[in-house]
Amino acid sequence: MYTLIDGKKTAAEIRQEIRREVEDLRKEGKKVPHLAAVLVGHDGASETYVAAKERACHEVGFDSTVLRLDEDITQEELLDHVQRINEDPAIDGLIVQLPLPQHLDEQKVIETIRPEKDVDGFHPVNVGRMTIGLPAFISATPAGILELLRRYRVETSGRHCVVIGRSNIVGKPMSILLARKDEPGNCTVTLCHSRTRDLASFTRQADIIIAALGKPRFLTGGMVGEGVTVIDVGITRLPSDKTRSGWKLVGDVDFDSVAPKSSFITPVPGGVGPMTIVSLLRNTLLAARKEIYP
Amino acid sequence: MYTLIDGKKTAAEIRQEIRREVEDLRKEGKKVPHLAAVLVGHDGASETYVAAKERACHEVGFDSTVLRLDEDITQEELLDHVQRINEDPAIDGLIVQLPLPQHLDEQKVIETIRPEKDVDGFHPVNVGRMTIGLPAFISATPAGILELLRRYRVETSGRHCVVIGRSNIVGKPMSILLARKDEPGNCTVTLCHSRTRDLASFTRQADIIIAALGKPRFLTGGMVGEGVTVIDVGITRLPSDKTRSGWKLVGDVDFDSVAPKSSFITPVPGGVGPMTIVSLLRNTLLAARKEIYP
Repeated sequence: MYTLIDGKKTAAEIRQEIRREVEDLRKEGKKVPHLAAVLVGHDGASETYVAAKERACHEVGFDSTVLRLDEDITQEELLDHVQRINEDPAIDGLIVQLPLPQHLDEQKVIETIRPEKDVDGFHPVNVGRMTIGLPAFISATPAGILELLRRYRVETSGRHCVVIGRSNIVGKPMSILLARKDEPGNCTVTLCHSRTRDLASFTRQADIIIAALGKPRFLTGGMVGEGVTVIDVGITRLPSDKTRSGWKLVGDVDFDSVAPKSSFITPVPGGVGPMTIVSLLRNTLLAARKEIYP
Repeated sequence: MYTLIDGKKTAAEIRQEIRREVEDLRKEGKKVPHLAAVLVGHDGASETYVAAKERACHEVGFDSTVLRLDEDITQEELLDHVQRINEDPAIDGLIVQLPLPQHLDEQKVIETIRPEKDVDGFHPVNVGRMTIGLPAFISATPAGILELLRRYRVETSGRHCVVIGRSNIVGKPMSILLARKDEPGNCTVTLCHSRTRDLASFTRQADIIIAALGKPRFLTGGMVGEGVTVIDVGITRLPSDKTRSGWKLVGDVDFDSVAPKSSFITPVPGGVGPMTIVSLLRNTLLAARKEIYP
């Protein structure tokens, strides 16, 4: 019988913990954490994400600012705004909601954010420090997965973890983090991707699988061994006539065939997804306390 | 019959190529590349390495400066020297020979070097950019290994590479670089280390093995499959009564038992070792031409 890794419940617990820490700060007369989000243009999904982040800040007692900028803003103007927030001592964490309109240079914008306020963990300094094993802001999805492994006491040391997908925001950092001399960590890690031959021969040998390739129900029961731990990072919207919205969220894992063989498994929705925003909150709290960059 | 990957010969060819490029710069009336090395104290091995780097610079026609600083220098004084070189437009590349005396903070010194002059590739910005897949200075040993794979036309795409050792200067960056969507690259990569269980079960499945754990003759013929490519990064000095010096260099690979099963293999000495200094020269040339940071 497998254990369902309940990301929704875990995320709620962590929000509760953060809320208590914020109350303590308030009682001690200290400044509460303040997250600023920059939103350029009117992309529907971006609006939704930023609104959810604002709501989460409110829920735990953080201050939050959303800076809405016109779609036609120039690169220079945008960088000026980022610089101003960089220098504003009232703001602890700064995120720029991606994607940006095509005429803007995303990488340049990311590199303009001060690493000390880069709570998304996308700045090369944070990626580099994570790779070297120094304190760093770790981006939301990998940080959320580590937290789930930690809270569900999934043994990682000496175990073989197969990561499927080499994206900069999930697969690559997960492969680095789980191989680190740390807890969770100390895994033997295999990083698989679109060029991997005979992927199933790797997944069958895995003690832990992180599926982050973005292909709905890709990983099936025949591709995994008994007792495997499966973390499903995929979120694809598929049309459905069984939901009122007309669509449903589907992961990279074929839950029905994989779950019976697994020891731990995350559902979709309700697994990794809910953890991402709490990871951002946690990073903002760390930034306010200057724990990463003292 | 295996192919011996001759690092000594390859390094000599690359030095020759760099020398020609420097001559061209000179003819065009342009500035030649200039490498500055900072050496603190009188560690014997460090003296030897710095002298070898100076000699290599001289050989290819680079300008070079060695700044020798007293062992008792304060952290602040050392950082001032680094800052001065950072701001000196005559100097393209800057390395601080490690290790530093115990009272100095190595990481702080590394992070003070401008990423644009960090030809050792140790600054978190360069490590981060490498991880993300952006142009970056790649540290000498990994860069040298990539160059050997490239010049010997070792096929990497879709092949399974097992890296043994997770050091920040070799194992970790190699695992990242060989998994990248690049050439050489596109490997399925397994990163093994001290906590890996049944290491031989991984190495036997490998098409390519990078041995970088620092245990003499660790990898033996029984641990590899037929046709494997083996890159031996280990260099351990063992006592010997057969050499005039009283010692000899031994790699992490038991050459005699592994070579007969391999398709490509590096010797020790004369494999990866000679490539490191030419990688540093190459990085300095890239720095002078502002190819990484335009």
